[in-house]
Amino acid sequence: MKKALLLLSLASAPVLAGEGKWTPQQVLELNPTELKKQGLQVPPQRLWDPQRGTGLLAGTVNVGGCSGAFISGTGLVITNHHCAFPIIQEHSTPERDLITQGFLATSRAEELPGKGARIQVPRAFTDVTARMLAAVPAGADDLARFQALEREEKTLIAECEKRPATRCILARFEGGLRYTLIDSVELTDSRLVYAPPRGVGEYGGETDNWTWPRHTGDFAILRAYTAPDGSAAAFNPRNVPYKAEFFFPLATEGVKPDDFVMVLGYPGITYRALLADEMAERLTRVYPRLIDLYGEVIRILEEEGTKDPAGKIALASNLKSLHNRYKNAGGQIAGITRGHLVDKQRATEEAVVAWARTRPAYAGALQAREALLSQGEQRARTFEREQLLDAMGLVSKGTAVSTRLTRSAVERAKPDLERQPEFMERELPRQRDWLEREQKNFFAPADKRVLLMLVRRAQALGPDSRIAAIDRAFGPTFSEKETAAQVESLYAGSKVFDLTERMKMAGETEAQLRARKDPLLDLGFDLSVELTALRTERERQQGAGSRLRPEWRRAFLAHAGKPVAPDANGSLRVSFAKVKGYAPRDGVLYTPQTTLAGLVEKNTGKVPFDVPEKVLRAAEARRHGPWKDARLGDVPVDFLSDADTTGGNSGSPTVNGKGQLVGVNFDRVWENVANDFGYNPDVARNVSVDVRYVLWLLDQVEDADALLRELGVRKGPAAQERR
Amino acid sequence: MKKALLLLSLASAPVLAGEGKWTPQQVLELNPTELKKQGLQVPPQRLWDPQRGTGLLAGTVNVGGCSGAFISGTGLVITNHHCAFPIIQEHSTPERDLITQGFLATSRAEELPGKGARIQVPRAFTDVTARMLAAVPAGADDLARFQALEREEKTLIAECEKRPATRCILARFEGGLRYTLIDSVELTDSRLVYAPPRGVGEYGGETDNWTWPRHTGDFAILRAYTAPDGSAAAFNPRNVPYKAEFFFPLATEGVKPDDFVMVLGYPGITYRALLADEMAERLTRVYPRLIDLYGEVIRILEEEGTKDPAGKIALASNLKSLHNRYKNAGGQIAGITRGHLVDKQRATEEAVVAWARTRPAYAGALQAREALLSQGEQRARTFEREQLLDAMGLVSKGTAVSTRLTRSAVERAKPDLERQPEFMERELPRQRDWLEREQKNFFAPADKRVLLMLVRRAQALGPDSRIAAIDRAFGPTFSEKETAAQVESLYAGSKVFDLTERMKMAGETEAQLRARKDPLLDLGFDLSVELTALRTERERQQGAGSRLRPEWRRAFLAHAGKPVAPDANGSLRVSFAKVKGYAPRDGVLYTPQTTLAGLVEKNTGKVPFDVPEKVLRAAEARRHGPWKDARLGDVPVDFLSDADTTGGNSGSPTVNGKGQLVGVNFDRVWENVANDFGYNPDVARNVSVDVRYVLWLLDQVEDADALLRELGVRKGPAAQERR
Repeated sequence: MKKALLLLSLASAPVLAGEGKWTPQQVLELNPTELKKQGLQVPPQRLWDPQRGTGLLAGTVNVGGCSGAFISGTGLVITNHHCAFPIIQEHSTPERDLITQGFLATSRAEELPGKGARIQVPRAFTDVTARMLAAVPAGADDLARFQALEREEKTLIAECEKRPATRCILARFEGGLRYTLIDSVELTDSRLVYAPPRGVGEYGGETDNWTWPRHTGDFAILRAYTAPDGSAAAFNPRNVPYKAEFFFPLATEGVKPDDFVMVLGYPGITYRALLADEMAERLTRVYPRLIDLYGEVIRILEEEGTKDPAGKIALASNLKSLHNRYKNAGGQIAGITRGHLVDKQRATEEAVVAWARTRPAYAGALQAREALLSQGEQRARTFEREQLLDAMGLVSKGTAVSTRLTRSAVERAKPDLERQPEFMERELPRQRDWLEREQKNFFAPADKRVLLMLVRRAQALGPDSRIAAIDRAFGPTFSEKETAAQVESLYAGSKVFDLTERMKMAGETEAQLRARKDPLLDLGFDLSVELTALRTERERQQGAGSRLRPEWRRAFLAHAGKPVAPDANGSLRVSFAKVKGYAPRDGVLYTPQTTLAGLVEKNTGKVPFDVPEKVLRAAEARRHGPWKDARLGDVPVDFLSDADTTGGNSGSPTVNGKGQLVGVNFDRVWENVANDFGYNPDVARNVSVDVRYVLWLLDQVEDADALLRELGVRKGPAAQERR
Repeated sequence: MKKALLLLSLASAPVLAGEGKWTPQQVLELNPTELKKQGLQVPPQRLWDPQRGTGLLAGTVNVGGCSGAFISGTGLVITNHHCAFPIIQEHSTPERDLITQGFLATSRAEELPGKGARIQVPRAFTDVTARMLAAVPAGADDLARFQALEREEKTLIAECEKRPATRCILARFEGGLRYTLIDSVELTDSRLVYAPPRGVGEYGGETDNWTWPRHTGDFAILRAYTAPDGSAAAFNPRNVPYKAEFFFPLATEGVKPDDFVMVLGYPGITYRALLADEMAERLTRVYPRLIDLYGEVIRILEEEGTKDPAGKIALASNLKSLHNRYKNAGGQIAGITRGHLVDKQRATEEAVVAWARTRPAYAGALQAREALLSQGEQRARTFEREQLLDAMGLVSKGTAVSTRLTRSAVERAKPDLERQPEFMERELPRQRDWLEREQKNFFAPADKRVLLMLVRRAQALGPDSRIAAIDRAFGPTFSEKETAAQVESLYAGSKVFDLTERMKMAGETEAQLRARKDPLLDLGFDLSVELTALRTERERQQGAGSRLRPEWRRAFLAHAGKPVAPDANGSLRVSFAKVKGYAPRDGVLYTPQTTLAGLVEKNTGKVPFDVPEKVLRAAEARRHGPWKDARLGDVPVDFLSDADTTGGNSGSPTVNGKGQLVGVNFDRVWENVANDFGYNPDVARNVSVDVRYVLWLLDQVEDADALLRELGVRKGPAAQERR
């Protein structure tokens, strides 16, 4: 009886405005009256139907690590410009520079297929906690525990993916307190319909990234296709547009301050369940070292990019991502410090500890916490070497590609279920895509300098932290000049960056690869040994974590006594929010909407404030069409809301209480970067492109009549008069 | 009859909120109902009594080029920290560093006399236009016209200053349309009562200068003394506090947004009456070249200051002033450009021209305008040389001091009325003060480098623009190294920077100075010839201006048909305003008040954001005493209003509708720097220290009990509890 009452009070607890990335299931646990009061006009059951395990939320799709949303029943998907960037880049040449010029398909035949563009549409969510836990043998040590869980995960996914064109993931909540199997349709034929010019889609560039006020039109429109019978299929001219059951019609009236909005999407990862000391570890070691390393890579790529226009294009995508992470790390440090997040977490944690001490049922939670803390102490000792090893597998293309090829050969020799997950059969097409696509991002002069820098850092490591592969290949003490010559000869003697050869290598056995005597491949084999050992050690730690963390979190959640949204894990979530400005500092208020006039005012004509002439002319002429906001007296460009977002929410639909699209989320503000560690209602703001800016561009600037008709939108009279 | 009606309609025209630095006389021409409606609670006649020619406005005093205000009947004057800086610096030594520590006199005996600190209290304003114009002989050419006006000005001033301890100035309005003789008492014994530490008075330093939000406590308190009989007198321990007839009691309740305020003071110079082409001249030539030159001087002084702590102290005052001008020039360029001020002025001007064309009475105005335009063309041709000559007389102390000494010797040989005004008998004590005080600002290594830089620039001038004195002393084409050696030898052979010798030189004749064979003095004599010739040419131009400008402005004012506040000219003015934030750009609002919490948030512990520990502790402990603003929940620090201010308004009292002090003006915002060329209500904002921050510091931080009692303020209970 007492328990039933507790559950009831949980269900009717008021929703904390803004805070919480709720799972679809949790939406139904929240108080519907409260949701309605906040502005939700559709019944929660329209968002998520517990019977079918789907609903309007499923109009939100995963677009290669970003979020996106169906905006028509004819397969049109809106996401961010920066999420569609790989497709735009793929079709850009110096002669036909779609990055700079933008792209509009005036008919379906003109739409541009994307090589790696995969769109995943969620279909079913199944709780598999019991089955996962049952898979761990009694008395398993931490590595065995990890392996058992991983094997069970693979098995679950393999079973799930027997159905054609299906992608399944296992989402772990609260460190392993709950496991959900998520089944999605994967659409492999998606095409570019509209991309604004870079001067719109990246307006403000790195200068404005993570800031407010913004004037960026960071959106693009794709279309998903299927075979004529409706099944997912690879690109084929005879394919037909995907018929989405759930989609978000465009809200032509837009939003105004204090309006209720929902941000839906696939937030990647947050750290709010970390212990205070684990947060401190990131604050004082992880982010500062990341800034140091990425800062140096950025300097190298930028220097090399200025020397060669082709190099500049090749490095563009990498630089974007590096800049983003670099600035993010700085923001995390600033935000954690300014928000006293470690201290706050410590205070909550101590309250939980005190509470649990008097409850014998939670004695295990306290022991688990102690064990997690000692894991952190161990990480501190091996950090330097591991950071460099990771970077060799990721940052320098030479070692990233060669270790990928060599690890693949070793893994492919094993039975499928025993492989490292990324080299299982289901992943091999993705690996091939990656190996092919990376050619676009490769620029030898920059890559050699990056590798040289990593090697020099490895040579400076202490005697207990050597990277044996590097010592063998380069020796420990050579001069920079000698090491540079060694790097040169590595690349000169390798065929890894010959695309045809590389795609051949992707299918070869270890013996075949070794027979090539390719120096980069040989280094790859050598590095792979250490990368694999490092991986095993981490797996052991993860095994321990999957045992300890749920134990601790169980106490934490019981102490909270109300619904707590779990940390982001790449699975579908929704955040309930309001359109809202904020005070970044004393004496300053940020208002929640920006306008075309502000865009014009900011425009210097120089990158990154160089909106194309046609946009500038229309804005300056105040040719607003029907997209003017009466209160602002102008077309809105971007807006703020206090939604709870993180990386992975790029491209998230921002929708109103009726379930109509009012914007496309593309960023958080600087003061809110450390949101990953804790939600602060004063500064937690996400940035969306206003749907009226999208419509204004399509209508008044691009004359995209057919596309607008398809979106059910009437063209503005001003644009008609103009012609 | 028609004329009377026109005058009536002028008198009842609504006051343009914010715009206009009104003269005391003009206050009475403005519509009193309108002033009352805006928030003026005292009758305008209390501000200014036309019978007596004085009033509450006269509680505003001139403090060495700054403004200030009496705040007690016992001679207490409040002004800016940066205006009191010379006195603070004068009493600072490495052992007793008042700049860093601040200063509080706990008794009158402890107050610190300032060598050059002179306070002028206005006494009478007399229209002398008729007499000035009558002094110009018929048929005088432009130089003769200038000389006649200057002679008459000197005569008027000499007559006026026959009364003891009197300073008189002649204020020219609208380029000579009206002349007013202003008679002030000059109090020559003023002493420092309170200066906050530099970390308060200069909080934010150059980083925050000209910006908002601000958290600067830029104020200091002096006391004016007289002889026991009430007459002005030099410092004497037996002197007594000055009994001010008019003063501004402190408004302990402070201000809130939208409150009516008045900013009173002595704004120095503005350029709103310039022709559009004359504004363009400043935009495209004067400010850019000034930025170039001052930028180089700043670099030199900063470099040399870091090498030597004593040098750093010596250069501090100069650097402050240079930085200020440098940033100002940049702001003028940005503001004139952004505000399209040249275009706006051109549009108004063309309207006046069109209007005047149809009115034969204003034919002369059109000709005058043409003549003014051709003067500008002439200035363009001689600009480079003249800028350098000016700099030699000002920026390098070596040439500034030596030209001052040699010019003085030459001028003192003439009858008083024939001298250049700054060397008339009445100015000689001021000249001696300056010569003595400059010793504090002299730092040889920096000064030599500045002179070297000027000489190198002079050597690079074209053949038509040579500076003969420099060519003679240095030759035209030597290498930098050789020129540097010449500069070294100039300084090595000179006694100009031996204070005792210099003060002797100040009294010597030309023959005596020449007999010294001091190389810097010889260069001074040589440069003085060219400086004097340049001066004569400028006098000719000014003579023409005094003939042409009033002619044009007469048409301009007639066309306006309403009261127009004249350009600032250093005379007493009042601006009517509201406490008000602004939108610096799209998406951003600046709120009009800042708080202690904001100060704490900004504090990094490093200059310039290093408020002293005692202030930080009181602020962090939220020890607000009675100075908390209920709405803000904190002690306000600074506030914005839309008053019409410029340089010279530093230290201006900001008073409420009852005539009580609510703040001390100390800056304008960056967007408002070009206000000198035109008032823009959207961004015209001045920055004042909130009187409650002053009171909080004195009460909660400094325990300045006696001073607070004297100001009629009850100490806060929190501070009492604390002890």
